[in-house]
Amino acid sequence: MSTLQQTIHQMGQQARAAAHRLSQLSSDEKNAILRAMAAALRARVPELLAANALDLEAGKAKGLSGAMLDRLKLDEARVEAMAAGIDQVATLPDPVGQVLDDWTRPNGIRIEQVRVPIGTIGIIYESRPNVTADAAVLCFKTGNATILRGGSEAIHSNRAIAEALSSAGAPDHAIQLIPFTDRESVAVLAGMDKWLDLIIPRGGKGLIETVVSLARMPVIKHYDGICHLYIDKSADLAMSAKLAVDSKTQKPGVCNALETLLVHESIAATALPVIAAALRAKGVELRGCAKTQAVLTDVVAATEEDWTTEYLDLILAIKIVASQEEAVAHINDYSSHHTDCIVTTDPAAAEKFLREVDSACVFHNVSTRFADGGEFGFGAEIGISTDKLHARGPMGLRELTSYQYRVRGNGQTKA
Amino acid sequence: MSTLQQTIHQMGQQARAAAHRLSQLSSDEKNAILRAMAAALRARVPELLAANALDLEAGKAKGLSGAMLDRLKLDEARVEAMAAGIDQVATLPDPVGQVLDDWTRPNGIRIEQVRVPIGTIGIIYESRPNVTADAAVLCFKTGNATILRGGSEAIHSNRAIAEALSSAGAPDHAIQLIPFTDRESVAVLAGMDKWLDLIIPRGGKGLIETVVSLARMPVIKHYDGICHLYIDKSADLAMSAKLAVDSKTQKPGVCNALETLLVHESIAATALPVIAAALRAKGVELRGCAKTQAVLTDVVAATEEDWTTEYLDLILAIKIVASQEEAVAHINDYSSHHTDCIVTTDPAAAEKFLREVDSACVFHNVSTRFADGGEFGFGAEIGISTDKLHARGPMGLRELTSYQYRVRGNGQTKA
Repeated sequence: MSTLQQTIHQMGQQARAAAHRLSQLSSDEKNAILRAMAAALRARVPELLAANALDLEAGKAKGLSGAMLDRLKLDEARVEAMAAGIDQVATLPDPVGQVLDDWTRPNGIRIEQVRVPIGTIGIIYESRPNVTADAAVLCFKTGNATILRGGSEAIHSNRAIAEALSSAGAPDHAIQLIPFTDRESVAVLAGMDKWLDLIIPRGGKGLIETVVSLARMPVIKHYDGICHLYIDKSADLAMSAKLAVDSKTQKPGVCNALETLLVHESIAATALPVIAAALRAKGVELRGCAKTQAVLTDVVAATEEDWTTEYLDLILAIKIVASQEEAVAHINDYSSHHTDCIVTTDPAAAEKFLREVDSACVFHNVSTRFADGGEFGFGAEIGISTDKLHARGPMGLRELTSYQYRVRGNGQTKA
Repeated sequence: MSTLQQTIHQMGQQARAAAHRLSQLSSDEKNAILRAMAAALRARVPELLAANALDLEAGKAKGLSGAMLDRLKLDEARVEAMAAGIDQVATLPDPVGQVLDDWTRPNGIRIEQVRVPIGTIGIIYESRPNVTADAAVLCFKTGNATILRGGSEAIHSNRAIAEALSSAGAPDHAIQLIPFTDRESVAVLAGMDKWLDLIIPRGGKGLIETVVSLARMPVIKHYDGICHLYIDKSADLAMSAKLAVDSKTQKPGVCNALETLLVHESIAATALPVIAAALRAKGVELRGCAKTQAVLTDVVAATEEDWTTEYLDLILAIKIVASQEEAVAHINDYSSHHTDCIVTTDPAAAEKFLREVDSACVFHNVSTRFADGGEFGFGAEIGISTDKLHARGPMGLRELTSYQYRVRGNGQTKA
């Protein structure tokens, strides 16, 4: 066994032991440690910035882009934002211990379904060092031990942040950072189902694909967001333009931004020019199907590829559909099942859409940008799951828990 | 691409299409089809028995054991039991459509979390042909399309059962049986995450290990049951003996049967002779730690292997522990986290045990044999999950569902 394997396996065993201790902490104990973690980050600003400077220097030498360097960069304000985020997590209700269900059987046994921590969670992520704090802290709040494996670009920053968090009174090994950043460390982690209950990859499609193909334990995935807005024949025109503009342009580079607009053909000639003008005023490039080109003569032709592309940019694909059925069929085929919305004043059409579209979030007359743990009121978000098992859509603290059945009797036997 | 791959991929695409249609059926429509499935099995008894005769003949020629042949065998009573099981599933409440949560945000958007089907489920199983009906019907009730891959021994029986079920008015391809039984078909199914949302392997450890190592989609596992009974220092002696006997002997070959007995040392000299006599009267072979051998001088020495063995037989390992802490530590180390029980008259000891043992089912003064979907009142059971994600412990209909967020607004934008 290589040193890398030995080290990571040992971290796994230590995480399992830490998880048992974490599961027994009260909410008050966990919250006090969380506030101490925030204080530790604030107290260590100079060390954190010094570690970050090493990463930035190495990044510049490697020729990282300005955008990449900006994602890497820590400054006093960013450290304060991390610390404030931890203080905020300390104020959230603790889902652990919540009784989900409770009933008595005819033979008198009482069955209680209670939320408990999952146990040990691996987080594999790429460049942003703040993920080290964000992910570890949400797992800690829910009584889980974490093993973090960040990207090589941020290794010094990640190490400094993990050390600060670990200095705040949490049980030993509650938060561990893997000291290796090579690909093999991902493979070792993904094979370690004895000690790791869950892996959450946070990053691009390539990273997620790698983890999925290697992992022996459950993986919660956050794939891309190919989100749709369907303008029904009974849509309000002003609202349609407003929601299209907000969904597409309010923050184009994120997973809940709009990528494809579907318009009912009976309203297309009236609606499309208004919507297109509003989008173009915000600098959006439009690409359309043949029917769209007949209405908006100056748009580029959309190809099959456009229906499957997450632009994450000021580009929008437009398709005119003959019916709501065609819109729903297009969405169920091409959507990444993240978030899809109908704009309509017809309640029956809305309810039919919400029932028929197979996506994590289905919206009626709301910007797709609201598909977000914060906007849902979860107070914290570990990601947006495009899976259907365990967690679907925005994931908050509840989604970092499991449950167990606690059964109380007075000597019941089956014989 | 091989014919096998092409066939299974096509079944995947068809299952996805069927899942969309299934998700739109009302509970009444599904229940009517379920009753028609039961009627189809009853009407086809001669065909089912003829198909089964081919399997039995091939099994005899292959030299299958009497026990294996008995598992394979169908007769009129067993077909009737399958049909009656389906009629029973038709009477259960349908979880699909249930509103799990419902709230309004300060900006006026209303968020509803609603149970929906998972979509498409692969079931990989071994010899018993009744699994074909049991699994497919529970998936159908919850609006999921199934792809079944049974073992080669039962292929004729499985095909006849699947044909009968498919003749009862369900949407096309709602229930499909893979016509191949070689190992490659498992690999193809496990790689097909585009069309399959979940795989449930039902069978031995070898089958589950294979599926886990190949699967790109979530797998719900039902590993073994190394269940413990801990006799606390404040245990009632008669109840201890009664629960040990029931847990160990009422049906020794199943996953919720007892495998290891832990006894507090302060009660061991009094309790162990009574419990041992009761177990021996039922023919149980006892193996014990050194301290146990000091009390029960005629028991065989238990080795490290005994603590990790699921006997599924009339054998019991016994260990004397110095404290409840030692009992809990032993369980958390050696249990398969299926079901573990404390026998005590001390409520504080019981609550501490329930809180500290990290298993799907933690019991106080109840036979471990009650860890079962039927005994929990679920009405149906697809298995007992030893996973912590999505479903833990006995899995009924609810565990075959996902959820989606349905959000209703009146034009809310983020900008």
